[in-house]
Amino acid sequence: MSIYSAAEPSTTAPAHRIHEAVVTVLDARGEPLAGAEVTVEQTRHAFGFGNIGFDFIGLANGEGNEADERLAELYTGVFNTATLPFYWGRFEPRRGEPDTARLQRTARWFRDRSVALKGHPLVWHTVQPDWLLGLPLDEVERLQRERIRRDVHDFDGLIDTWDAINEVVIMPVFDNGDNAITPLARAKGRIAMIRMAFEEARAANPNVKLLLNDFDLSTAYECLIEGVLEAGIPIDAIGLQTHMHQGYWGEGAVLATVDRFARYGLPLHLTETSLVSGHLMPADIVDLNDYQIPEWPSTPEGEERQADELVRHYRSLVAHPSVEAITYWGLTDADAWLCAPIGLVRADGTPKPSYEALRRLIADEWWLSPTTTIADENGRVAVSGFSGDYLVRVGDAATPITIDRTTDRIQISIPSNN
Amino acid sequence: MSIYSAAEPSTTAPAHRIHEAVVTVLDARGEPLAGAEVTVEQTRHAFGFGNIGFDFIGLANGEGNEADERLAELYTGVFNTATLPFYWGRFEPRRGEPDTARLQRTARWFRDRSVALKGHPLVWHTVQPDWLLGLPLDEVERLQRERIRRDVHDFDGLIDTWDAINEVVIMPVFDNGDNAITPLARAKGRIAMIRMAFEEARAANPNVKLLLNDFDLSTAYECLIEGVLEAGIPIDAIGLQTHMHQGYWGEGAVLATVDRFARYGLPLHLTETSLVSGHLMPADIVDLNDYQIPEWPSTPEGEERQADELVRHYRSLVAHPSVEAITYWGLTDADAWLCAPIGLVRADGTPKPSYEALRRLIADEWWLSPTTTIADENGRVAVSGFSGDYLVRVGDAATPITIDRTTDRIQISIPSNN
Repeated sequence: MSIYSAAEPSTTAPAHRIHEAVVTVLDARGEPLAGAEVTVEQTRHAFGFGNIGFDFIGLANGEGNEADERLAELYTGVFNTATLPFYWGRFEPRRGEPDTARLQRTARWFRDRSVALKGHPLVWHTVQPDWLLGLPLDEVERLQRERIRRDVHDFDGLIDTWDAINEVVIMPVFDNGDNAITPLARAKGRIAMIRMAFEEARAANPNVKLLLNDFDLSTAYECLIEGVLEAGIPIDAIGLQTHMHQGYWGEGAVLATVDRFARYGLPLHLTETSLVSGHLMPADIVDLNDYQIPEWPSTPEGEERQADELVRHYRSLVAHPSVEAITYWGLTDADAWLCAPIGLVRADGTPKPSYEALRRLIADEWWLSPTTTIADENGRVAVSGFSGDYLVRVGDAATPITIDRTTDRIQISIPSNN
Repeated sequence: MSIYSAAEPSTTAPAHRIHEAVVTVLDARGEPLAGAEVTVEQTRHAFGFGNIGFDFIGLANGEGNEADERLAELYTGVFNTATLPFYWGRFEPRRGEPDTARLQRTARWFRDRSVALKGHPLVWHTVQPDWLLGLPLDEVERLQRERIRRDVHDFDGLIDTWDAINEVVIMPVFDNGDNAITPLARAKGRIAMIRMAFEEARAANPNVKLLLNDFDLSTAYECLIEGVLEAGIPIDAIGLQTHMHQGYWGEGAVLATVDRFARYGLPLHLTETSLVSGHLMPADIVDLNDYQIPEWPSTPEGEERQADELVRHYRSLVAHPSVEAITYWGLTDADAWLCAPIGLVRADGTPKPSYEALRRLIADEWWLSPTTTIADENGRVAVSGFSGDYLVRVGDAATPITIDRTTDRIQISIPSNN
C-alpha cells in the first residue's frame, strides 16, 4: 500500500496549522478509483486573513471606477475576511435613517467573493451621533440597545461576527470631546456595558460571534476580561489591536502580549494591525489621533521595512496556536486612517512590497495550488495543507472538502459519467 | 431658649466631617440640669488616622527600651489605628509555627491604648514562606485557605479589619523571584483569588471588614474592582497605596485618583502613604524596590517639604467624602522601608516637623479639647465636632457619647451624687 502526498506546504509553515487527510475516491458503484488522476487545490484559508472593507462601499453600490475594480482584485487576491464600518455617528447621522441598504449591498458584494464579514463596532464612545447628546441616560441606553438589535438583525446571515464593544477599558473615562456613551459607561460600569452589548446582539442573532476589542493591551484589559468571564458573559474571541505607527514592536513583544491573553483559552483576533511605510510617528505621542500631519509620504526604505516587518508579524502570529485571525487596517494609502502610509497599496493604486510579500505568504507559501497525484490501489491520496477548504477534481467532477484538525479520512464519490 | 455652642473646630475643617448634636443633661429624676457646667472633650476620631505598628512588637512583648516607650507615646499622641504585619513568610517561616502569640500580645497592647487594628495582608505573592515552593497548586491553595482561616480566627475580636489580598493586579504576572502564589493566581485568575481570600476570612469571622489593597491605581485596578463587584464579592473598603518616594503627586492628582475609585460608592482607605524628608527617588525607577542605597539621609529642607506636603495631603484627603482612613507607612526612620527617610520621627527618636504638623492637624485643629459651657434652661448644650467619641463631664460624672451624622439629639442622665 502506498499513500501519495498530494503536496506539502512550505516547511516554514507552523505545524499546528497543517492538517493531513486521506481522501478515498470511489466510483458511482462504490469501487475505489485506483490509479485515477486526482487534483487537489485550496480554495480558502480557515485562518482569517482580513482587511477593512471600507473602500469598497462605493464599488458595491455601483459607484466604483476602474481603480476600485483593480483594488478589489488586489483585495480578493489575499484576504478572506473584511471588517465593515458601523460607526454609529456615520451609519445613522440622522436619527432613524441608518445606512443599512448600502452596507447590505457591500456585505453581499464581499460574500459573493467568498469574503466573510465582521461589523465594527456596535458600542463605542467615539464617532457617536450628535442626536444622542443631551438625552437622559436611560434614553441613551434604550437607543443603544435598539441600535444593536436592529443592526445585528438586519445583517443576520450576512455579518455574523461583530466587534460587540470597542475599547471598553477607556470607555468610562474617555474625555476627548462630548459623547453620550462615556456617561452611560460611567454610570453602568464597564462590565454592564459589555453585558448590554452581548445580550442585545445575541437576542437578535443567536449564532452571532462576539468580540471585545481594545487597543489597551495592558493589565487593565486582562482584569476586564477576567471580570467579564467571572460575570458569566461568554466572549467568542478576544480582539487585540496592534496599530504600530510608532514602529514594529518586534516578535518578542507581540508574542509576549499574545501569550498574556492566550491564558483565557479563547481565540485571539488581531483585529486592527498597521505598520507604516514612511517615517515613524514620534514615540512620545500617546493617543495616535493626536498626530495629524498634512502629508505623510510612503518612502522606498519605509516600504522595504514595512514588508519585512509585516512578514515577521504574520509569521509569528500564525505560529501562535491561539490566534485565529489577523485583520490589517487598510489596503490602500488613499484615505488611510490618520493619513498614515499604512496601506499595502500606494495611493496611486500600485502595490507596495508589503502587498506582494503578504500575497506570497498567504496565497503561495501557505497555500496549496492545484496539484495532481495518482490514487493508489485503494483509490487513496493524501492531502496535506493549511486548515481550510479544498476542491478535489477527478475528471470533470469537482468535490469540495474541508481539512482541519477533525478530519483525517474523507471519502468522495465521483458520478459515473467521469 | 438659647443653645450654646460648646466649641467649633477650625473653620478649615471639611464641613462633612463635622457634626452637631444637642446634648440634654438631666438629673437622676429626669429634670433638666439648667445652668450646669458641662465639659465636653473628644476622645477619639471616627476617621482612621493610622500608621504601621511593626515597631512595637518588641515593646508589646516585654523587649522594649525607653526609646520604644517614647516612640509609643508619639504614636498614641496622633494615631488611632495600626497596621500589623502578617507577611506569611515572616509570620510562619517554619511550617506550623506561626508567630501568633507575639502578634496577639501586640494587638492587645494597641487595643489597650484605644488603637484599632488592621492585619496586612492575608494573601500576597511577596514575602512568601519558602516551604510553599515546589508544592502542587492545589496544595498551595489548601494551605493558603487554611492560613487565612487560622489567622482571622486567631485574631477575631482583636483584628477585625484585614487587607484580605494585596496587589492582585500584578499578582498573576509578578516575576521578581520565585513564589508559590503567582502560579496559583495565574491558574485561578485574579477574581477567583479574591473570592478565595474573602470567603475564607468571612468564614472565620463573619464581622470582618475586608479590603482590596493595591499600588496599581491605574485603569487596571478599576477594571478589577468592577469585575469583583459584578462577581458579587462584597468589598468593605478599597485600599489605595500612595507611596510617594518620587515626590508628592499634588492635591489635584491625588484627588483625581481618589475620585476615580470613589465612583464605586465604597469607602476608600489610603492604606500606605509615604513622603520622604530627604532627596527624592529618581523618577525613572518603576519598582520602588529597585532603588536601594546604603544611606538616604533626612535633610532640613527635606523635612520642611515633607511637613508641608503631608499637611496638604491629609487636608485634601480628609476633605474628600469617600475617604475614611489614611495610614501612614512608618513612624520612624529607624528600619524604614527601603531605608527611605519617610518617617515622621528621625532615627534618633526626635520628631520631624512632619510629626508636629500632623499632630497639630489631627489632635488640635481637628480635635475638640475639653471645653466647658453652661447648660441652658432646658439642660441643653450644643456640641459640634469631628465624627468621633466624646466624653461629657458634669461634676464627677463622665458620660461617653458618639457624634456622627446619625446623632443630633443625645440625652444623658447624671447620677444624683453629682
